[in-house]
Amino acid sequence: MTATGVLLVSCPDRLGIVAAVASFVAAHGGNVIDLQQHTDHTDSAFFQRVEFELDDFDLERASIAEAFAPVAEQFAMQWTLRFSDDRCRVAVLASKEPHCLHDLLNRWRTGELHVDIALVASNHADHRATAEWYDVDYLHAPIVDGDKGAQELVLRDALHLRQVDLVVLARYMQILSPAFCAEWSGRLINIHHSFLPAFQGARPYHQAHDRGVKLVGVTAHYATAELDDGPIIDQDVIRVSHRDDVEDLRRKGRDLEVTVLARAVRAHVGHRVLVYGRRTVVFD
Amino acid sequence: MTATGVLLVSCPDRLGIVAAVASFVAAHGGNVIDLQQHTDHTDSAFFQRVEFELDDFDLERASIAEAFAPVAEQFAMQWTLRFSDDRCRVAVLASKEPHCLHDLLNRWRTGELHVDIALVASNHADHRATAEWYDVDYLHAPIVDGDKGAQELVLRDALHLRQVDLVVLARYMQILSPAFCAEWSGRLINIHHSFLPAFQGARPYHQAHDRGVKLVGVTAHYATAELDDGPIIDQDVIRVSHRDDVEDLRRKGRDLEVTVLARAVRAHVGHRVLVYGRRTVVFD
Amino acid sequence: MTATGVLLVSCPDRLGIVAAVASFVAAHGGNVIDLQQHTDHTDSAFFQRVEFELDDFDLERASIAEAFAPVAEQFAMQWTLRFSDDRCRVAVLASKEPHCLHDLLNRWRTGELHVDIALVASNHADHRATAEWYDVDYLHAPIVDGDKGAQELVLRDALHLRQVDLVVLARYMQILSPAFCAEWSGRLINIHHSFLPAFQGARPYHQAHDRGVKLVGVTAHYATAELDDGPIIDQDVIRVSHRDDVEDLRRKGRDLEVTVLARAVRAHVGHRVLVYGRRTVVFD
Amino acid sequence: MTATGVLLVSCPDRLGIVAAVASFVAAHGGNVIDLQQHTDHTDSAFFQRVEFELDDFDLERASIAEAFAPVAEQFAMQWTLRFSDDRCRVAVLASKEPHCLHDLLNRWRTGELHVDIALVASNHADHRATAEWYDVDYLHAPIVDGDKGAQELVLRDALHLRQVDLVVLARYMQILSPAFCAEWSGRLINIHHSFLPAFQGARPYHQAHDRGVKLVGVTAHYATAELDDGPIIDQDVIRVSHRDDVEDLRRKGRDLEVTVLARAVRAHVGHRVLVYGRRTVVFD
Repeated sequence: MTATGVLLVSCPDRLGIVAAVASFVAAHGGNVIDLQQHTDHTDSAFFQRVEFELDDFDLERASIAEAFAPVAEQFAMQWTLRFSDDRCRVAVLASKEPHCLHDLLNRWRTGELHVDIALVASNHADHRATAEWYDVDYLHAPIVDGDKGAQELVLRDALHLRQVDLVVLARYMQILSPAFCAEWSGRLINIHHSFLPAFQGARPYHQAHDRGVKLVGVTAHYATAELDDGPIIDQDVIRVSHRDDVEDLRRKGRDLEVTVLARAVRAHVGHRVLVYGRRTVVFD
Repeated sequence: MTATGVLLVSCPDRLGIVAAVASFVAAHGGNVIDLQQHTDHTDSAFFQRVEFELDDFDLERASIAEAFAPVAEQFAMQWTLRFSDDRCRVAVLASKEPHCLHDLLNRWRTGELHVDIALVASNHADHRATAEWYDVDYLHAPIVDGDKGAQELVLRDALHLRQVDLVVLARYMQILSPAFCAEWSGRLINIHHSFLPAFQGARPYHQAHDRGVKLVGVTAHYATAELDDGPIIDQDVIRVSHRDDVEDLRRKGRDLEVTVLARAVRAHVGHRVLVYGRRTVVFD
Repeated sequence: MTATGVLLVSCPDRLGIVAAVASFVAAHGGNVIDLQQHTDHTDSAFFQRVEFELDDFDLERASIAEAFAPVAEQFAMQWTLRFSDDRCRVAVLASKEPHCLHDLLNRWRTGELHVDIALVASNHADHRATAEWYDVDYLHAPIVDGDKGAQELVLRDALHLRQVDLVVLARYMQILSPAFCAEWSGRLINIHHSFLPAFQGARPYHQAHDRGVKLVGVTAHYATAELDDGPIIDQDVIRVSHRDDVEDLRRKGRDLEVTVLARAVRAHVGHRVLVYGRRTVVFD
Repeated sequence: MTATGVLLVSCPDRLGIVAAVASFVAAHGGNVIDLQQHTDHTDSAFFQRVEFELDDFDLERASIAEAFAPVAEQFAMQWTLRFSDDRCRVAVLASKEPHCLHDLLNRWRTGELHVDIALVASNHADHRATAEWYDVDYLHAPIVDGDKGAQELVLRDALHLRQVDLVVLARYMQILSPAFCAEWSGRLINIHHSFLPAFQGARPYHQAHDRGVKLVGVTAHYATAELDDGPIIDQDVIRVSHRDDVEDLRRKGRDLEVTVLARAVRAHVGHRVLVYGRRTVVFD
């Protein structure tokens, strides 16, 4: 598989956007291998993802953005250009529960997830041995004397130092400050263990059990300052019954958390997600 | 398939309940063909469903309850006894949308649903021709001058007159009074077009679209005076994407509404549901 | 919703196809509202669906195909052009079981399915009253003295007479001749009550029960001369257990048959399906 | 959670079996906390699982079987008695692919899976470091000069030496001899990466891709001498599309393989599975 370029575009809907983008790519020798487009009719909003081969492209990678800028300007686009062999630098934050962390590390080590794991961090010391086994930096950032601000500062410094592109909250149970959420807006993915917007907040499996639901779900979303309210990337559910107590819901939910978080991270690093108000467009 | 008896039992958990019930059935010549039992450990609550053949049972049907009473008393049981060839008398209430109504009528006519449809009622005149085609009584009970109380009285009389056992709200969009809900408690099944407790109240597909969820769901539940808060019998979901507008959610949701409501009605008339606080035990 | 045009294209993969098609549409004033593209890398095959608004299109509908022909020729395209307000003329064939037939008729009558039902036909007389209720022509085409050829001739004449575009086998249990399948190739949709390629041939629910599977499935596919081997359009499954006998599998399967067949018909009449060897591309 | 006893029973159907078993348990002071029963009407076969508390049981564990024997004899039962704190001794066999192995080891280490992992074995050396990290014995049993018989002998000795109760084939790609399958009959669980009986044999994801299916599945089953034909314990599927190439099917399938194998192992070690011809009864 040779490298490809990916243009991810959103703008007000107008005549000729697809033609303009596709013509730009073709004119420079790029063969389109995947194109998906979506128009939101209510808001007259246009979304597009174009993936094209770079083999015969007649521009250097570093010059493509500049060459594309006039097209983007013409249609008032918000846009990004990425290359398939760029490796997103990912930090994984976890608290006590290890399953999502282990799963991401496994997918990374087996090559399924094309990223660099730049850091594993936790408010607990528990995962140090795991990080060492995977040969990844580990940051134990405890909350000392309840000073969350100080701890967050330690986290932020570590993320900057390692030039992290994406922070994954892999069952990280500390609430992050609005400032942190704003800084990492659109680059901060959380897995919440309920089918949002049901059961926001603490102990969703207990809430689900009390309510007597017949399915439990999980939600991967971009974290925002509004707790459990950010744009949803992916969700899934599993059937439960009266036979399942809270511990069973937790166990069944873990398998969902793992797969849904991995799908969301995969979509993000594949440049397949556009945030759009509190909604997302996810090109599959 | 010969007729069977079904004992549905709940009581405080104690030693020997299964043995007592099974011994009663066996002592009278009843062969157990299906037994399911559940203990809720948190509340020390016991639930059981026993289905047994009547062919060689040495008591008349009319005498079984009396014979069982001492067993029930010993364990402080709440219990019901039904026979598989009892046909539950069902009234179906609908407003404008026809899909759930049609579906129940079709399942009834093809023999899949072993009930008697005693009445179809609506606050609109729309479904009269349908009811006639299926040869079922139709009650058009409009709300005149906004007098919901008067309309509900008409409904209640019609239900009593036809000795209805179960009222199914097949996309009936009028809120019923607390008195009505109380009278029909545990015998009033509603289909709500969201994955409760998410999106309670009006226009759940609009709410779901605004929130940008990646799955939409439906919930069949016993209606109570608390809107959309009664014990859940069954739920299901279907995947949606940014490509689906509200109309698409409605369309995809309709297929779910139809199947989930039918499953809930089937469970109820098969004497498989025990209400337990705001939860249910559904023996499958 | 105003009318749109849909171009459905397949051809060998080459540089510039998307640009050429999109530029054609844009040059004539057509705003693209939905574009999906797929490249099969193994076979270097290119597939595309473009839907565009006709409001400001500067060509008459009747002239679009001629204008597009040079573009199509340049890339050796196989292609079709349809308009969203074209109503596909559908014939539904059923044998004894009514559920798929009823479901399609309901979706048609409620306006969910944008087609004309030109004919309901069966080798049995059973569905005449149903067809009359829906005000659709009914053809009872019995097989007399085992002469299937004669019966098929009756069917074919009826289909031609009514200028049918699509034949839906809605649990039609007669095997059609290779000549019939060839004539209706790509316009003949069957629902098979198993998860193909498992349980081809007769009595798949019995086969599934014997094998002890934990899920049963259904498959909507284009029928070909090879029984149950045509290109698959859609499939789905439902969970079953040891508690389900063959009759339960049938019941659970019916709900799947209905929804999966309806989804396949919807995809076909929305010009979303391209056949590709024994596979399909289904743009959703 | 205190320890419980589990009786797993199958026998010809007759009057009074439930009563006899439940009365035995109650007479000795055992409180039933979970009872499930199933009758197969076609074959008049009876199946039951009874789980009861041991706290106030008036027999020593070692004496229960002897005391129960007369009841079992009366009804010609096949039966087993296990205790919830018995830890099944499990050997996991893998070839190259690590995902199922890792997953089982993780579930074991986090305490979700109540077993002892007695051995990890492979025909490759790949997983030694993994086994060491989890502090589990590792056997590298290569096939030398194509002598599969000799390798199998090494495996069998290792399994006997460690008194293994259950062998899990966690993507072990070597075909085991009929003698081995017979010796481990009912104690040998395999995960096959297709929705059996579709795509038996080699390279099922390639087969699935060639056939153009719209769902791929996996099957956990007891391995028998007939390849991919043993009694099915659990199955699941995931949606795929024309966009997914064989590598995508593999990736999506891996998540299923992991969860379905884990569910099957959990059901087996929880004494919830009865084999019944080529079918299974799985009490959930």
